[in-house]
Amino acid sequence: MKKHNYSAGPCILPQEVFEKASQAILNFNNSGLSILEISHRSKDFVAVMEEARSLVLELLNLEGKGYQVLFLQGGASLEFLRVPYNLMKVEGKAAYLDTGTWANGAIKEAKSFGETVIVGSSKEENYNHIPKEYQIPSDANYFHCTSNNTIFGTQIKNFPKTNVPIVCDMSSDIFSRSLDFSNFDLIYAGAQKNIGPAGTTLIIVKEEILGKTNRNIPNILNYQQHITKESMYNTPPVFAVYTSLLTLQWLKKIGGISAIEKINETKANILYSEIDRNPLFTGVASKEDRSIMNATFVLKNPEHQELFDTMWKEAGISGINGHRSVGGYRASMYNALPIESVQVLVNVMKELENKI
Amino acid sequence: MKKHNYSAGPCILPQEVFEKASQAILNFNNSGLSILEISHRSKDFVAVMEEARSLVLELLNLEGKGYQVLFLQGGASLEFLRVPYNLMKVEGKAAYLDTGTWANGAIKEAKSFGETVIVGSSKEENYNHIPKEYQIPSDANYFHCTSNNTIFGTQIKNFPKTNVPIVCDMSSDIFSRSLDFSNFDLIYAGAQKNIGPAGTTLIIVKEEILGKTNRNIPNILNYQQHITKESMYNTPPVFAVYTSLLTLQWLKKIGGISAIEKINETKANILYSEIDRNPLFTGVASKEDRSIMNATFVLKNPEHQELFDTMWKEAGISGINGHRSVGGYRASMYNALPIESVQVLVNVMKELENKI
Repeated sequence: MKKHNYSAGPCILPQEVFEKASQAILNFNNSGLSILEISHRSKDFVAVMEEARSLVLELLNLEGKGYQVLFLQGGASLEFLRVPYNLMKVEGKAAYLDTGTWANGAIKEAKSFGETVIVGSSKEENYNHIPKEYQIPSDANYFHCTSNNTIFGTQIKNFPKTNVPIVCDMSSDIFSRSLDFSNFDLIYAGAQKNIGPAGTTLIIVKEEILGKTNRNIPNILNYQQHITKESMYNTPPVFAVYTSLLTLQWLKKIGGISAIEKINETKANILYSEIDRNPLFTGVASKEDRSIMNATFVLKNPEHQELFDTMWKEAGISGINGHRSVGGYRASMYNALPIESVQVLVNVMKELENKI
Repeated sequence: MKKHNYSAGPCILPQEVFEKASQAILNFNNSGLSILEISHRSKDFVAVMEEARSLVLELLNLEGKGYQVLFLQGGASLEFLRVPYNLMKVEGKAAYLDTGTWANGAIKEAKSFGETVIVGSSKEENYNHIPKEYQIPSDANYFHCTSNNTIFGTQIKNFPKTNVPIVCDMSSDIFSRSLDFSNFDLIYAGAQKNIGPAGTTLIIVKEEILGKTNRNIPNILNYQQHITKESMYNTPPVFAVYTSLLTLQWLKKIGGISAIEKINETKANILYSEIDRNPLFTGVASKEDRSIMNATFVLKNPEHQELFDTMWKEAGISGINGHRSVGGYRASMYNALPIESVQVLVNVMKELENKI
């Protein structure tokens, strides 16, 4: 039985992506070679990389606006370091919004570089909301935020208006909703939610913000180096990039971000409505900041846990245990999760109510 | 028709690895989930990571000798940076052996940290041999070398005896030959030759050499951080690690390094014998330093190139064009390349001789 996979990441990808990726491991593009054994310099793979980069700009409506796209290795956690290396001036400073575990990881790496101003934080409330009304110092080299907080189930709905370059970690909600992406100067995202399998990081950078730090940047951390080499400064993660291309092609085919956004909103509405309606459950995140990707909720009475856990497992659901720092449950509803899977979870919640 | 794949990397992997990897994308461990959609914290994947790390120590005969194994992202090029960050003291220095393009990449990153002494170089002879008789300063924090030079077809046969910790980039010949691996203090290797697909880097480090620099090391670059988190400081490249495990299991099954070494020597002997015998060809690298992984050779008469290229392509051979910095041909004979593929190439070389 195919599972209803609510894993927070790595997470479900479209079934047709699994099938095409599986096939390409046996015979890629009818070449007689596996996608795992071809040179990254081969004509076929160069075409994959180019199409993936160009599809990113098309889907985000960023074509012809001075952005460069990279597919690198290292995860968002390596970008926590690359960002200050490339953007924080010697004796400069950066502004960070502290909305959770991953924002904190980014802050820690930035602090080893220079002055890191935390302009807002919801740490005291265990990150159950997004700080608002914060001020970004006008002399900051950049402002860094995390658009969606997987662990806590919060999501930034309104991004600040500022003249300071905006850097955004969109690992867990990129390609899920319509935004004016041209308001961002640098976007990065680990692939393992809406892009592809774990093992590559998507970086979209407005080229004009680079080269201004007077800092000595190691080659492997230098965005400009990777731009010049078209993401092949060193051997790229061929399979992860190929599978990301398959996922982007699927997204384009079903209608792009505006189409998936409607589906995502439908899924989120179905689940949050049940969380709010069902007397056994309560949501964790502030309503106005609820993520459409990750819904966090708890049972009001912990004694119901054993029965509920048995019931959702029997229904074929997997991956809805909450993160240890929040507890309870977390239902991650990334792009590829079908509406039917959400219906199954909601049915189990209703059945629990009927049984108790 | 299945190709005879001589690609320099990413390169051929065992056919059974392709088949198992392909299957795991549809249904991993009969879980009803794809290997691409499971959490890296799931019991099944934690078991994969643990078995992969333990098999590395077993195959290299390093069990119980104080070594830690990591599977990270970033490729060997990121290790060029991690190594000085973790091992070069503030005001310290490191010794490097310059044997080619990749050694040079490592040297460039080290230079941004501190004094980097090049103890030997064959650059003036286009890296056609391995420098010998070099001295390693006794006060160097470490000595760095590249065991096999993919582009130039040279390989270090005798490693220096020194009290300085030895760091070795074994990207293109790890698991191919018997060595006393306990002579090395840190070994790293991009997976995409003898380990698995592009997208993960294997690092084997003697834990006692860490923590001695007094340097502020960013978390993502800190080996100790990754050791503590058992390669899960951030999301690991799940599929690349799993496929690496499959390749290591295959290597163990066929008899480990001593068994594959005999096969590799047989393949190299067949090809080098023909290069030396056939009056149309000549080898590029000095005979005593010839790599058993990558054989570089040229046609004595460039006019024969068109015919030769047509002939090997017709025979189903791919990936033997030389790197642009050497020209001619490069036959990469990694662990998974069957002896029959070498025989096919040698037959084409003989046929060319007969035709001319």
